[in-house]
Amino acid sequence: MKYNQYAYVETPFEKQVAELKAINFLPDDYSSYSLTALFAKLVQMTIAEAKSDESKKAKMIEFAVSENQTLAEYLQTERETISVQEFYNVALQLLGYHVGYDYDFSDPTAFMKKQALPFVSKIGSIDELISAFYRLLNTRSKNGQLLIDVMAGKGYFTQFWGEGKFIFFNGKALPVFDTNKVIREVVYVETDLDTDRDGQSDLIQVTVFRPAESGKDLKVPALYTASPYFGGIIENVARNHSVDENLTDATVWTNPKYEHTQIVEAPHPAAGEGVSAEEAVHKSSYPLNEYLLARGFASVFAGGIGTRGSDGLRITGAPEETESAKAVVEWLHGDRIAYTDRSKKHEVKAFWCNGNIGMTGRSYLGTLQIAVATTGVAGLKTVVSEAAISSWYDYYREHGLVIAPEACQGEDLDLLAETCQSNLWDAGSYLKIKPKYEEMQKELLEKGDRVTGQYSDYWEARNYRHHTDGIKCSWISVHGLNDWNVKPKNVYKIWQLVKTLPKDHHLFLHQGPHYNMNNLVSIDFTDLMNLWFVHELLEIDNHAPEQWPTVMIQDNLEADYWHEEADWSDELGQEVVYYPTDEGELFKDGNGKAKLSFTDVGGKEFKEAKISESDWEYKFICGDEKWAKPSLRFTTDEFIRPVTLVGRPEVTITVAGSLPKGQISVALVELGDRKRLTPTPKFLMRGGQELGYRFGTDTLQEFVPDKLTHAKLISKSHMNLQNYADMHKPSKIEAGQFVELNFKLQPTYYRMPVGSKLALIIYSTDQGMTKRPLEDETYTIDLAKTELRFYQK
Amino acid sequence: MKYNQYAYVETPFEKQVAELKAINFLPDDYSSYSLTALFAKLVQMTIAEAKSDESKKAKMIEFAVSENQTLAEYLQTERETISVQEFYNVALQLLGYHVGYDYDFSDPTAFMKKQALPFVSKIGSIDELISAFYRLLNTRSKNGQLLIDVMAGKGYFTQFWGEGKFIFFNGKALPVFDTNKVIREVVYVETDLDTDRDGQSDLIQVTVFRPAESGKDLKVPALYTASPYFGGIIENVARNHSVDENLTDATVWTNPKYEHTQIVEAPHPAAGEGVSAEEAVHKSSYPLNEYLLARGFASVFAGGIGTRGSDGLRITGAPEETESAKAVVEWLHGDRIAYTDRSKKHEVKAFWCNGNIGMTGRSYLGTLQIAVATTGVAGLKTVVSEAAISSWYDYYREHGLVIAPEACQGEDLDLLAETCQSNLWDAGSYLKIKPKYEEMQKELLEKGDRVTGQYSDYWEARNYRHHTDGIKCSWISVHGLNDWNVKPKNVYKIWQLVKTLPKDHHLFLHQGPHYNMNNLVSIDFTDLMNLWFVHELLEIDNHAPEQWPTVMIQDNLEADYWHEEADWSDELGQEVVYYPTDEGELFKDGNGKAKLSFTDVGGKEFKEAKISESDWEYKFICGDEKWAKPSLRFTTDEFIRPVTLVGRPEVTITVAGSLPKGQISVALVELGDRKRLTPTPKFLMRGGQELGYRFGTDTLQEFVPDKLTHAKLISKSHMNLQNYADMHKPSKIEAGQFVELNFKLQPTYYRMPVGSKLALIIYSTDQGMTKRPLEDETYTIDLAKTELRFYQK
Repeated sequence: MKYNQYAYVETPFEKQVAELKAINFLPDDYSSYSLTALFAKLVQMTIAEAKSDESKKAKMIEFAVSENQTLAEYLQTERETISVQEFYNVALQLLGYHVGYDYDFSDPTAFMKKQALPFVSKIGSIDELISAFYRLLNTRSKNGQLLIDVMAGKGYFTQFWGEGKFIFFNGKALPVFDTNKVIREVVYVETDLDTDRDGQSDLIQVTVFRPAESGKDLKVPALYTASPYFGGIIENVARNHSVDENLTDATVWTNPKYEHTQIVEAPHPAAGEGVSAEEAVHKSSYPLNEYLLARGFASVFAGGIGTRGSDGLRITGAPEETESAKAVVEWLHGDRIAYTDRSKKHEVKAFWCNGNIGMTGRSYLGTLQIAVATTGVAGLKTVVSEAAISSWYDYYREHGLVIAPEACQGEDLDLLAETCQSNLWDAGSYLKIKPKYEEMQKELLEKGDRVTGQYSDYWEARNYRHHTDGIKCSWISVHGLNDWNVKPKNVYKIWQLVKTLPKDHHLFLHQGPHYNMNNLVSIDFTDLMNLWFVHELLEIDNHAPEQWPTVMIQDNLEADYWHEEADWSDELGQEVVYYPTDEGELFKDGNGKAKLSFTDVGGKEFKEAKISESDWEYKFICGDEKWAKPSLRFTTDEFIRPVTLVGRPEVTITVAGSLPKGQISVALVELGDRKRLTPTPKFLMRGGQELGYRFGTDTLQEFVPDKLTHAKLISKSHMNLQNYADMHKPSKIEAGQFVELNFKLQPTYYRMPVGSKLALIIYSTDQGMTKRPLEDETYTIDLAKTELRFYQK
Repeated sequence: MKYNQYAYVETPFEKQVAELKAINFLPDDYSSYSLTALFAKLVQMTIAEAKSDESKKAKMIEFAVSENQTLAEYLQTERETISVQEFYNVALQLLGYHVGYDYDFSDPTAFMKKQALPFVSKIGSIDELISAFYRLLNTRSKNGQLLIDVMAGKGYFTQFWGEGKFIFFNGKALPVFDTNKVIREVVYVETDLDTDRDGQSDLIQVTVFRPAESGKDLKVPALYTASPYFGGIIENVARNHSVDENLTDATVWTNPKYEHTQIVEAPHPAAGEGVSAEEAVHKSSYPLNEYLLARGFASVFAGGIGTRGSDGLRITGAPEETESAKAVVEWLHGDRIAYTDRSKKHEVKAFWCNGNIGMTGRSYLGTLQIAVATTGVAGLKTVVSEAAISSWYDYYREHGLVIAPEACQGEDLDLLAETCQSNLWDAGSYLKIKPKYEEMQKELLEKGDRVTGQYSDYWEARNYRHHTDGIKCSWISVHGLNDWNVKPKNVYKIWQLVKTLPKDHHLFLHQGPHYNMNNLVSIDFTDLMNLWFVHELLEIDNHAPEQWPTVMIQDNLEADYWHEEADWSDELGQEVVYYPTDEGELFKDGNGKAKLSFTDVGGKEFKEAKISESDWEYKFICGDEKWAKPSLRFTTDEFIRPVTLVGRPEVTITVAGSLPKGQISVALVELGDRKRLTPTPKFLMRGGQELGYRFGTDTLQEFVPDKLTHAKLISKSHMNLQNYADMHKPSKIEAGQFVELNFKLQPTYYRMPVGSKLALIIYSTDQGMTKRPLEDETYTIDLAKTELRFYQK
């Protein structure tokens, strides 16, 4: 498996020497050493767990340079040169590999090539030896971390604890801060909101984890994670709305309006400045933040309105939510007041913050990054937004239909608000908030309008993409190409806007579902983020923005290969059009002429079968006889050369339903028996990555070939027949009336292997995502007016 | 769910006051407080995360005493009495419960009864208030921990860090040691072994985690975990032996002999005393040890011979293994030499140890406790042996057959040795050890004798039960009644011996498989262990041995009920005999007369079906038509009153095979459609238990009712037909010769619910445990000479 590395910064020899000396790795008098003596010295320095010269020396018998000589024996003789083979036989042990299991004494570099590990070609001088070690310390170990970070995990950098300065190595911040003494404090930021209508402005509880060394003398940047789940999660999945109901005439739509709750100007503090006297009880929920905290970056969490310790109501996706999240940035930047506690007696300032704020987090936590970024709030320098929603309509709705995120059938704005309204867990808040919370629940349900599923002003207020012109920070988006929770359209559509802004921007697309990517084998994402935040928040000129390509896309066939692209859009490819034939084929030349029908039976058989939604989906895309019945399928010949689908496939369908209402789904599927990648990465060394020194761990993972499967979903889309004319307004239709539906499917980047086939499936009820009607409906498709169009490279 | 509590020690009021003052919880001038003021004070003291009086006071608005009054409002009025309802509405919040979700304002104590939480009946005086708080701090919170430990997790006891003394509260040690500064050091203990035959005595690497406060001035006890997995695990499951082979004539048995490897007297150290200069890279693998480390108990890990950092060869189960594990106790007790590093220059003493050693650990780690305990080594005061092997024959063999531990088909002594021979991962050791390791692998395979499966001198040397007269320590055994890896016979048989020794002894039997029990909801096991080790290793008279019943057995129907017994043996019940009838029934009166046959087809159909062993087992015990074919089944009527099977059921079968060899399995199964408990406990609040302050976490868990199943395995056993006359020696048999087999099944404690039926299944190939012959064999059972006998209460 390839340990690809993008975050290694090419460094001149003099700088290598200076950096190695600065961390006390290379002795000042190194030029007085013999080659052999320096080799011994540097190997011993790398063994960070041995704390004395004697114990380091004793360790030499645990290493071997060849199949008949230990390192201890080897070092007894002075040498003019160290062979590459000898050097890397030892170096691979330092990197955590085992001879006889991982590699052979006879050819260590063959193994290194296979693993994409860098190695030098000659070690005949002191300088070459130093360079070899500089590169080695900046090489990824078996656990995925740089060797220098593995050494850090064994306490190498405790010698710098308390010095109160950042140290950089190869452009990245080192973990030189005293993680034993991390300050974990709570403050209360005052907003201008009054979502709970008590006439008082809502206080937001903010939890700060920061280096003990930070303060007036050492101002540090803040990584801020706006996490509505931080205060706790109220389990309510059992209350999810039923989706087993018929569609209804969408023209009853009234275009519900969004109204902002009242604004209350925040008062000024009554007494003088104080310091936080409340310690955090909740923990950082993101290993990337912990990793960077050990390296000097404060980690700041806030749940926002309605969450435990904070005032107010949760109003999923609304501008109030954005404003409450933004208020924290304003406090960090010195533009807003916070108090030591809820009695509001003493103001507390972020005196330890250098005013440069980055945001991190995934899913809802990524979404709020987009939300806050569009406000252009001062101090926010960059966002690393993972698996984020860019418009809430694209999360809970699609094309006039109620469409669930994967594994969340029946969830909606109201239920997510309930999940996050954790201030109800404090009995004191409960007394005050409960009645107002119940009103808000009602509003979210009514105005979210599960009845018609239509777009409205209420959803418009939840579309961040209308405000990208406000963005003033640099931008990184991360998304899984198989994310059927926050579907890829969310990142694709905002990327098309962000990429035009005069700010640095990057995009990572991995092969996971709704998932992080910061500890994959195949890419050194964590190291890249280190480089990035050092550049953006500490303003160090380490060339981070140019260090890796704008768009990185993990291959769906070989997980350790990343496509390097300048963009992600239709324009990467050439348009190609396929037409369905009367015989169920997909051809490039000429449509079928038939009108073909299928009868949808809603959720009836699915519920009887008592299988899971994911089981259904797999059986359905495979064409399992029972489940394929309520669908039409059109399949290409086997691909004779590899083709990559890029951007958003489009499908035009001319269809009539047997009722004056209806929903159509379309899916693109790759067919072929082969071992595809695991849906989620496999854990390779559980807890094997140290984030600092005795400071939490993470686990290396990667997608690996899994058992044989028959098919894989590439993309899909759903549409209400009543939206054939306008995606934002329903029309009356008659039973039997043919309408033309123009679908833009979820975007993709999908490599079709030779021998596979592409299938277009036209169906109605999607058990995992659409409503599941109780009545049958027959849909008739006019093949002459149906086509599939996509972009390929 | 009941939070049962056994570790609360009844404490006189004066002692309560003294203990509360000693931890600075109760102010010295408490008698000058009004009732209301003291109530406020003590609630605020409990909120350990608020560090100043002001922030504690500000927290009062987060609590409520009733549905219309916050605690802040309540405290504004002086009161003569605090109602039980008001008190526990607040107390339950302190315990982590949420009003409106977990309990109602109107009746908090109703909820407390349901949860088995203690409460006082009146709070009308200062003294009553103090007692209520003393009991509250010693009450289990929602996360399963005592409230005092929850407070510890929020930093309450950092005020005592560095003072270097133990503090006890309600008989248990408190976490008052500075966990930020835990010393983690490595030393090398010299043994008298030379398993790798290099003429040098084998060094054993020992990792010590101990409080920074420990040393010459504060000697602390040591909890020692002998873990062969500590240095790493060499994955080799793919190399497991094939079990798809025919039985062969066992009379080729030669009774292989065990021979001890050579002894080399350890030399004395060359130079003076030193201190460890090598820091631990491996981590503690057991949360119970971490919990106790924060409370002042050193935690010591050693892999023993053959493991990473140590010399020698792994010889699974052999006396050498015991001796290498014992050597560490000797060093801790001052009776053996250790060195600072492998160069053996400087001796290092356990000068910080009070000479009292306890052992902990599960599975192999529990096994080595039994092994070491039987040596009677000085300093070992107690063992808490979980899921331990007491004879290796009972792990890999049974009654003349090769029988796998669950999910370990094809594993054996040699493969487990390979798994643990992690010193091969250090290239220096690899050079020296590899050839000798390969010889030992050969010996383990040959002498372990998978060919005949018979007992021998080689296995006899691996039976710790012959040496229980050497035991000089107190004893706790823990085992899962559904442990089909280390089967319950292991604990049952050694318990029958240990219970006769003049030492305190306890037994816990839970409903899990091969699993720990230290964080269950239904029993406060961790607190009991705290009491226990305080008593055994710190010699504090806290009445631990009498604090809970000798034998605690978790009920298989209601997981939150624990049976309190004086013993676990057949004698708990009354004998009852059932006879199979010609119609497949089990009756108490009169045998069947028929000779019934079934034809065993080995693993043929199982392999074709490509199902897992556990799938097979469930289908098989349920009587699934396809899988039940090669078996005979006899079923009782429905039980009309509940009956508990206790001890070891016995089955006598008179059988003839169609070949001059054969294997018979018998199983007892409970039949009935109902929701049984989950096989493993469900995680309830992941990471929700703090083991100290910022010092690792554990997760509360419990067995909970699961989805409906049709049957559950109670017990089983397997026997080689060639052992009908002697379990320790094979006999020739003829095809068609009837032999009488007397099985003692795995012991149990199984409550049969009303309406369930008991089934006896007679079969041959057990896909998950026996060899799976390639040839068919027909077995004929003489029902007239077949019976089932067990003990019931």
